[in-house]
Amino acid sequence: MRIAVVAPACPVDRETAARVNAIAARDFADVALVWHPQCFLEHGHFAGHDQVRENAFVEVANDPAVDAVWFARGGYGSCRMAERALARLEGTAGDKAYLGYSDLGMILAGLYKQGIGRPVHGPMVADVRRDGGEAAIARALRWLTTGGAAYDGPPRVAFNLTVLAALIGTPLQPDLADHVLLLEDIDEHHYRIDRAMFQVTSAFPDLAGIGRGRFVVPTNNRDFGADVGEIFGHWCDVSGIAYLGIADIGHDADNSIVPFGVTA
Amino acid sequence: MRIAVVAPACPVDRETAARVNAIAARDFADVALVWHPQCFLEHGHFAGHDQVRENAFVEVANDPAVDAVWFARGGYGSCRMAERALARLEGTAGDKAYLGYSDLGMILAGLYKQGIGRPVHGPMVADVRRDGGEAAIARALRWLTTGGAAYDGPPRVAFNLTVLAALIGTPLQPDLADHVLLLEDIDEHHYRIDRAMFQVTSAFPDLAGIGRGRFVVPTNNRDFGADVGEIFGHWCDVSGIAYLGIADIGHDADNSIVPFGVTA
Repeated sequence: MRIAVVAPACPVDRETAARVNAIAARDFADVALVWHPQCFLEHGHFAGHDQVRENAFVEVANDPAVDAVWFARGGYGSCRMAERALARLEGTAGDKAYLGYSDLGMILAGLYKQGIGRPVHGPMVADVRRDGGEAAIARALRWLTTGGAAYDGPPRVAFNLTVLAALIGTPLQPDLADHVLLLEDIDEHHYRIDRAMFQVTSAFPDLAGIGRGRFVVPTNNRDFGADVGEIFGHWCDVSGIAYLGIADIGHDADNSIVPFGVTA
Repeated sequence: MRIAVVAPACPVDRETAARVNAIAARDFADVALVWHPQCFLEHGHFAGHDQVRENAFVEVANDPAVDAVWFARGGYGSCRMAERALARLEGTAGDKAYLGYSDLGMILAGLYKQGIGRPVHGPMVADVRRDGGEAAIARALRWLTTGGAAYDGPPRVAFNLTVLAALIGTPLQPDLADHVLLLEDIDEHHYRIDRAMFQVTSAFPDLAGIGRGRFVVPTNNRDFGADVGEIFGHWCDVSGIAYLGIADIGHDADNSIVPFGVTA
């Protein structure tokens, strides 16, 4: 199985790639990881110029010899190339899974909106550097090679809260009617989480429910007076969307895999 | 002239109010500043509970004895009460100017969307604490008592970039077709400014143009590779919206006054 790695946001280094290759070689004999050289470029904040990242993604997505596309790392940058990249995808792009999270939610959302392939929230290459990161890499490769368990509940999506809020009103915004939405975030103050929940619950009023993944919240100079659970409860109350409690996603090595939609 | 002060976001203290009262007493003999006691409340992050802030705003907006509503301070909180407050406004609310900026952009946007009164971007009470803040207070009071110069260019609005991005897709989002949009921000990294510009230029594609106010950008652990002017230029290029160069607004004592729409 050929899994292509590209980096629509920030780059990874060769040592990170080597660690992931070692895990694949040891435990996933049927996997060939194909590293697009774009993964290692640097252009300001990004893994290469917008056009270079767009071309790399389109190349692997359209390649009939590639079985799945695995995103290398988040950070920021996907929204600068997603719309034009999606417009260039061909029929072969629809046969693949696309695995990533965080900033890559921009691309997963756009794919899902357009019904292209199988967008999947889950670990990326750069997660190997976290404590327990080898398990995250193994989880990702296991899912890519065997697929997950069948699931016939309401369709699900998972996003970084700030990324989902930032794609509202853009051509990447998917229709999430009757979906369960799982959200996580990192390094956002309570007031930012609250504001993003205002926006998300306003823009997706017909969700079937919202689950709360893990949040890492920095200390603010002004105490907010409510924790993340209370913020979720507040906005679910205001919007009338069901609050489903905690969900097993987050910016960490335990981040679970959530295929968008229904996979039964 | 009776100017009511309320605080839909964060509170001010009595000493701040006294400093503003002193300026009004000295230089604006015809002004009576009416401080709603809600301005001085504290409830977690906010100047009182959501319902209390909503009630205070509705009370002064609907009061026929009040000529203008001046917002005390930004921070965060307006989006938690704006929609319900706007639904309670009566005809008398349409006779007034509403002056503020930053987080108060949530209310100014909603007023403008619904065609209620005269929403105006400009200094707030708490600005008295800035270096040069007395001039900002005088500028606000002068505008409230005499009105600004007539203006017959394209209709204008001014927003904090992050606040405007956060109201996209919500019931507060105004129609800005053929408007000139002036933007400023503070304490947001370049990548956040870039992401917000993606969202704003996507959601308001029919703007007449975008002006760049002052931005205070903290250092990031990863250099972005472009400054704010280049970010504005990029997204104006991508969206086809005219980039109008610099604008005289910002989170500072020099923040100029921008009545929404046309005031000729």
